[in-house]
Amino acid sequence: MATIVQKYGGTSVADLDRIRKVARRVAQTYDRGHEVVVILSAMAGVTDNLISLASRITTTPERRELDVLLATGEQTTAALMAMTLKAMNYPAESILGHQAQVLTDGDHGNARIIDIGSERIRSLVGDRKIVVVAGFQGSDVNGNITTLGRGGSDTSAVAIAAAIQADVCEIYTDVDGIFTTDPNICPKARKMDRISYDEMLEMASLGAKVLQIRSVEFAKKYSVPVHVRSSFSEEEGTMVVNEEASMEKLVVSGVICDKNQARITLKKVPDQPGVAAKVFAPVAAAGIIVDMIIQNMRSGGQTDLTFTVPMTDFDRAMAIERQVAEEIGAEAVLGDPEIAKVSVVGVGMKNHSGVASLMFTTLAAENINIRLISTSEIRISCVVTEKYAELAVRVLHSAFGLDQTD
Amino acid sequence: MATIVQKYGGTSVADLDRIRKVARRVAQTYDRGHEVVVILSAMAGVTDNLISLASRITTTPERRELDVLLATGEQTTAALMAMTLKAMNYPAESILGHQAQVLTDGDHGNARIIDIGSERIRSLVGDRKIVVVAGFQGSDVNGNITTLGRGGSDTSAVAIAAAIQADVCEIYTDVDGIFTTDPNICPKARKMDRISYDEMLEMASLGAKVLQIRSVEFAKKYSVPVHVRSSFSEEEGTMVVNEEASMEKLVVSGVICDKNQARITLKKVPDQPGVAAKVFAPVAAAGIIVDMIIQNMRSGGQTDLTFTVPMTDFDRAMAIERQVAEEIGAEAVLGDPEIAKVSVVGVGMKNHSGVASLMFTTLAAENINIRLISTSEIRISCVVTEKYAELAVRVLHSAFGLDQTD
Repeated sequence: MATIVQKYGGTSVADLDRIRKVARRVAQTYDRGHEVVVILSAMAGVTDNLISLASRITTTPERRELDVLLATGEQTTAALMAMTLKAMNYPAESILGHQAQVLTDGDHGNARIIDIGSERIRSLVGDRKIVVVAGFQGSDVNGNITTLGRGGSDTSAVAIAAAIQADVCEIYTDVDGIFTTDPNICPKARKMDRISYDEMLEMASLGAKVLQIRSVEFAKKYSVPVHVRSSFSEEEGTMVVNEEASMEKLVVSGVICDKNQARITLKKVPDQPGVAAKVFAPVAAAGIIVDMIIQNMRSGGQTDLTFTVPMTDFDRAMAIERQVAEEIGAEAVLGDPEIAKVSVVGVGMKNHSGVASLMFTTLAAENINIRLISTSEIRISCVVTEKYAELAVRVLHSAFGLDQTD
Repeated sequence: MATIVQKYGGTSVADLDRIRKVARRVAQTYDRGHEVVVILSAMAGVTDNLISLASRITTTPERRELDVLLATGEQTTAALMAMTLKAMNYPAESILGHQAQVLTDGDHGNARIIDIGSERIRSLVGDRKIVVVAGFQGSDVNGNITTLGRGGSDTSAVAIAAAIQADVCEIYTDVDGIFTTDPNICPKARKMDRISYDEMLEMASLGAKVLQIRSVEFAKKYSVPVHVRSSFSEEEGTMVVNEEASMEKLVVSGVICDKNQARITLKKVPDQPGVAAKVFAPVAAAGIIVDMIIQNMRSGGQTDLTFTVPMTDFDRAMAIERQVAEEIGAEAVLGDPEIAKVSVVGVGMKNHSGVASLMFTTLAAENINIRLISTSEIRISCVVTEKYAELAVRVLHSAFGLDQTD
């Protein structure tokens, strides 16, 4: 007997038919003698509908009240699922975030989990109940309803799995698992059997939207084995686990492409102490996250500063930097939204030299110009012109030996 | 400065426009310096939609889970209302049943309020906040969500008004107040300025659907002045208050008609001890409420037993009584669903004789046959053939001096 947490996303519970299918899957797991805790998202589209309802009241809905509103989405799914299981004669019981003792900070709309009490869930599974938990929600110390932000149900699931020391946290989604790259871009993409937390973190933050990044951080912190798999098939998916010796056989595990970036360059910035602070402080103050930064020395005590920001913040960042350029006496501000960040990720590269050079050579062979480079211990990212992004992904996928062979 | 509880029903908050109108009304009251607590129903149609969604899963949805589902209706309205008020720069805060400390028993779908803690609401209004409470819901001692049954938001409102010792509980609805009879039946019906709790109880239980009967019981028990009024006008409505000397001037305050009744007669029942128990025990066991009972003696140690049941239980009651008739040796079971119960109600009749005789004479003058009679201290009811119901209401309304004179 194992304790299994299963999380189903919005498309898996999009209507009553799908809820019934999920219920049968849950029941199967229960029938094998396991303790089962189910975490649910809102039915597909519901959260967006609620947000658009609120936005018809005001463009800036009070965040506390928006959380109260949004929480109804997961509450609905949890009730319908428990009802379906009960109708199938399984002893299910739904609980909401505050009932599941999901304690968060008070940052409405993007709350962070502080603690999860395991008593209520433990006591219910101890009575052989199937516990159906409304994901995405918790409550703060004053009992106010909070929500965990986009994809927050993943975090709910992993955090609850950690709290009750579950044997595995299964994340059911509409894809078969984690792929070496986006199969829509590269038909030779392969599903991975295993991936380490660190690689998953790099991939999640680079735009692979399978798992919310905070859920992976939680999983890593508490060593929760996460199984990403399809709710539409019985196939095994991808296990996200601690790094294992065998993982290092492959130098690179995956190739990721992120088009949601834009590039900004300040030309001929006076190269004086404190100038970088003047360039980046106002952007940070506006809540804009700067990703990559590069500085090119020029002659004559001047330098070019280039950095990337999320596409959605591009216009705001440009406006801010035009002001900055005037203040510090930079020559010009250039912007380019048509870029893409292509990255290779793999725990194996820690022990291998030559990954960067293989990456650069491969791109050069296709005449793809690299505009910016950044690296982490297990990742190398290059910014290229957007129109070459797909080609870059395919040639890198092949060069690093990731192509499906059959 | 007064403490005012305002309850708005589903039609008053049916869409964002109406919610905005209600918000303006709430804000007006707040601007006059009052402490304001708003209790809301689900938007019109929402509860029915949720019930029909659940019924697509199973014809008998688990009641605990149905409550979790239904509670989302009021939660949504509360969040939208608080959001609207905040967008108008009023310091509003929504709270749910459990947050408002509405403690109920565990009878899901029809829970009764055991206690309401006043601390949270008192503390919020003390901070000059407009408190927006999700009506219809509470939680039991184990923190499970419960709902109070049809019209439960009225009870939420009155109970909360009692708990926080509000000066008045305003029930906003789509009619102008309580009328002497149904204006659709009798164009000369008048809106009452005041009505006593006891009269309102009789009228609520007789099918005047303005207030949930339990809310009136609560109001009476804790002497909460209830003001029933229209959310679409500024006119004063009807005050439901303790009996006052002036009220007794009118012998009869109102005439009510209830068509949701059916009549069952057991012919030639052996007149033996215990036979009534044999007739009524199985009906009670089936949860069917018997309203009026009449027994006609016949010669030869036999009797006819006639009683009424709600229309919705008519078929089940008939089936039970056919069985009973066989067991006890009654001759036949006759049923008649085409009846109506017409009643006159008034605290004044306690001190006046002749009300019954005026009622019978008035009906006789129109050749309306009375099939059954029942009375309480402040009510006389007659069952008549359904097709004469409207006529009976009109002539009684006129005979007891209730007709509008202008």
